[in-house]
Amino acid sequence: MANKLIYLDNNATTKVDEKVLEVMLPYLKEEYANPSSIYSFSRKSSNALKEARGVIKDFVNAKDEKEIIFTSCGSESANLAIRGVLNYNKNKKHIITSKVEHPCVLNVYQALEKQGYNVDYIGVNANGELNLEELDLAIKDDTALVSIMWANNETGVINPIGKISEIIKSKNKDTKLFVDGVQVAGKIPIDVQANGVDLLGISGHKFHAPKGVGALYVNSKTMITPLIIGGHQERGKRAGTENVPYIVGMAEAAKLAQDSLHYEMTEVKRLRDKLESNILSKIYNARLNTGVANRVPNTTNIGFEYIEGELILLHLSDLGICASSGSACTSGSLEPSHVLRAMNVPFTAIHGSIRWSLSRYTTEDEIDYVIDKLPSIIEKATSISPYQKELQALKDLRK
Amino acid sequence: MANKLIYLDNNATTKVDEKVLEVMLPYLKEEYANPSSIYSFSRKSSNALKEARGVIKDFVNAKDEKEIIFTSCGSESANLAIRGVLNYNKNKKHIITSKVEHPCVLNVYQALEKQGYNVDYIGVNANGELNLEELDLAIKDDTALVSIMWANNETGVINPIGKISEIIKSKNKDTKLFVDGVQVAGKIPIDVQANGVDLLGISGHKFHAPKGVGALYVNSKTMITPLIIGGHQERGKRAGTENVPYIVGMAEAAKLAQDSLHYEMTEVKRLRDKLESNILSKIYNARLNTGVANRVPNTTNIGFEYIEGELILLHLSDLGICASSGSACTSGSLEPSHVLRAMNVPFTAIHGSIRWSLSRYTTEDEIDYVIDKLPSIIEKATSISPYQKELQALKDLRK
Repeated sequence: MANKLIYLDNNATTKVDEKVLEVMLPYLKEEYANPSSIYSFSRKSSNALKEARGVIKDFVNAKDEKEIIFTSCGSESANLAIRGVLNYNKNKKHIITSKVEHPCVLNVYQALEKQGYNVDYIGVNANGELNLEELDLAIKDDTALVSIMWANNETGVINPIGKISEIIKSKNKDTKLFVDGVQVAGKIPIDVQANGVDLLGISGHKFHAPKGVGALYVNSKTMITPLIIGGHQERGKRAGTENVPYIVGMAEAAKLAQDSLHYEMTEVKRLRDKLESNILSKIYNARLNTGVANRVPNTTNIGFEYIEGELILLHLSDLGICASSGSACTSGSLEPSHVLRAMNVPFTAIHGSIRWSLSRYTTEDEIDYVIDKLPSIIEKATSISPYQKELQALKDLRK
Repeated sequence: MANKLIYLDNNATTKVDEKVLEVMLPYLKEEYANPSSIYSFSRKSSNALKEARGVIKDFVNAKDEKEIIFTSCGSESANLAIRGVLNYNKNKKHIITSKVEHPCVLNVYQALEKQGYNVDYIGVNANGELNLEELDLAIKDDTALVSIMWANNETGVINPIGKISEIIKSKNKDTKLFVDGVQVAGKIPIDVQANGVDLLGISGHKFHAPKGVGALYVNSKTMITPLIIGGHQERGKRAGTENVPYIVGMAEAAKLAQDSLHYEMTEVKRLRDKLESNILSKIYNARLNTGVANRVPNTTNIGFEYIEGELILLHLSDLGICASSGSACTSGSLEPSHVLRAMNVPFTAIHGSIRWSLSRYTTEDEIDYVIDKLPSIIEKATSISPYQKELQALKDLRK
């Protein structure tokens, strides 16, 4: 049992698909040329780069492969998008985001606020759904940028990006919309054109490519300055010798993700729903933090009332089960999740909230194993909770 | 002969060492955990990250592994260093660099100049050696930063960094020194402490790690702001899930490079010198662009007068020989090299200048092959030059 690994933390990172590694290997071995070089040895790597750009263009349904910039990660994509748009619109000092964004957006906004930007942070309801009226009212004449994630990393809640774009553009057609698409890539279809997205960031390692590669879509009508200045790479928008192996790998991962979308939206969803409904029915102090919200098919965020999430995670870890209490990017901090706080998840549940995120590799056996083992873990953790009176009241209520 | 590959462009990029790939593979396969996660599955990747940090610390002789920040490339390291130092010293508006820096420094400085910074660009002599008196005179009370490369990518000329640091600190102890160390890593020993370096950037793919990973050394007395803001990674100085496979690979590459330093400085140098002296003795219109300057052991930059470098490169490419006419990061532009222009290389030679950069994989047979084949290539290119009169005069002169 010690060597069992049940990986239900696919919103933190994913296993590299074997086929992805396979297409990468030639570029980690004999095809090592710098794609910018002029000799014929570089042709294979420069062609591979071109082909990968076309694949990512199709993956997000961009119009032109020139709209794709390869980056080193989702965080770089977000920083490039936000800083890049604002540097091109220096006279506009108002920007908008939501309270539940990933730190790579939220912390940039907070830095910009200190630099003199006026920022509106749009709230969410108890299910984690964005307050669209609040967004509508916030847009001004000098609103340079709105950053809204497509799906939340902690809850999986999907924002209606097409509608959000309509709201923004009807109020101010010059306001740009950056969408952090990291948590939708490989989970639901992405169509930047149909949804009026100006900029979209994705990260390879969230859909079975390695950690250390991402992309930013920037539509042809949107101008940005580079974040990393230097050589002519990426049409002057991102300097640095291209990471050919990972870029080729991410393109293969995108193809595989596209091919697996139906499976993700049916079978992965079925397993997620099975896990969720069993936990909720078997464990009286469990609550679904997102209620009826529309979510990506692989994620569920469940609060276990009156107990500590870290304790649950350590017990799970002993059984080889990997889940998380929030984003890996904020782990180490003792603060409860800013996402769950924005949703007003009661303090009794916020510390004991666990995110479960599946992938196409998740099996029914694994889910059955978790369903089998979790109740006793929760019972053990509950038994040492200092809130026994409240737990008894809850038990009586839910019976 | 068509499949022959003689790769003499190791300053553009290098072949990944087989041992480097070997240590990376587990992290591209089963050990895929996000190192920030709390379950025991992540322990191996977080330990690997910690170990790699220690190796890079030793590689540059930093005092503390906390002084090492992993980045995605040399360009990111330079951008982070420059922007990071200046954001911490907003009241100081004077900065210094050299005319022969890599675009990832020079283009950042040019952007800063447009933003209102006063910039001094220090010149070099005909051999490419930095004018230290000019540097001395340029340092002012409000000089926030000096950026000087340790060795030039096009010529291999080494700057006396220890002396440069002394000059800077004796004029203004608060001025920070960023050193672009990309072209010395694996070629000569690096000791940031002994040379008074405040910040140093390196890039994995220049010493047989893959493209897409780098590091920035920042000594504990130097404060910087992050370039990519988001999660807590790299102690808040660089957000984004860590590229564990490449970081582990770069650490292995650093160990191998350290072990090969003696070989690099003796055997690689011997082959470089053999190539150089044979070209200079056999080809009358060849000139060594760096004269007697102190250089890294693997590089030689040779001008072929009155002919076009691109033509030479294409003929070489037909024989499977890879060399370059300048930095890969500036290729595609028709402008002659800014480095050779700063050295006042005569216009008759600047367009026909070729950089040859060897590695520990370069063999004597390969060098002999180039020595054998190059004269007829140059002769062919020379025969169609419109400067026949000048060529004849040169031939007579050098005979």
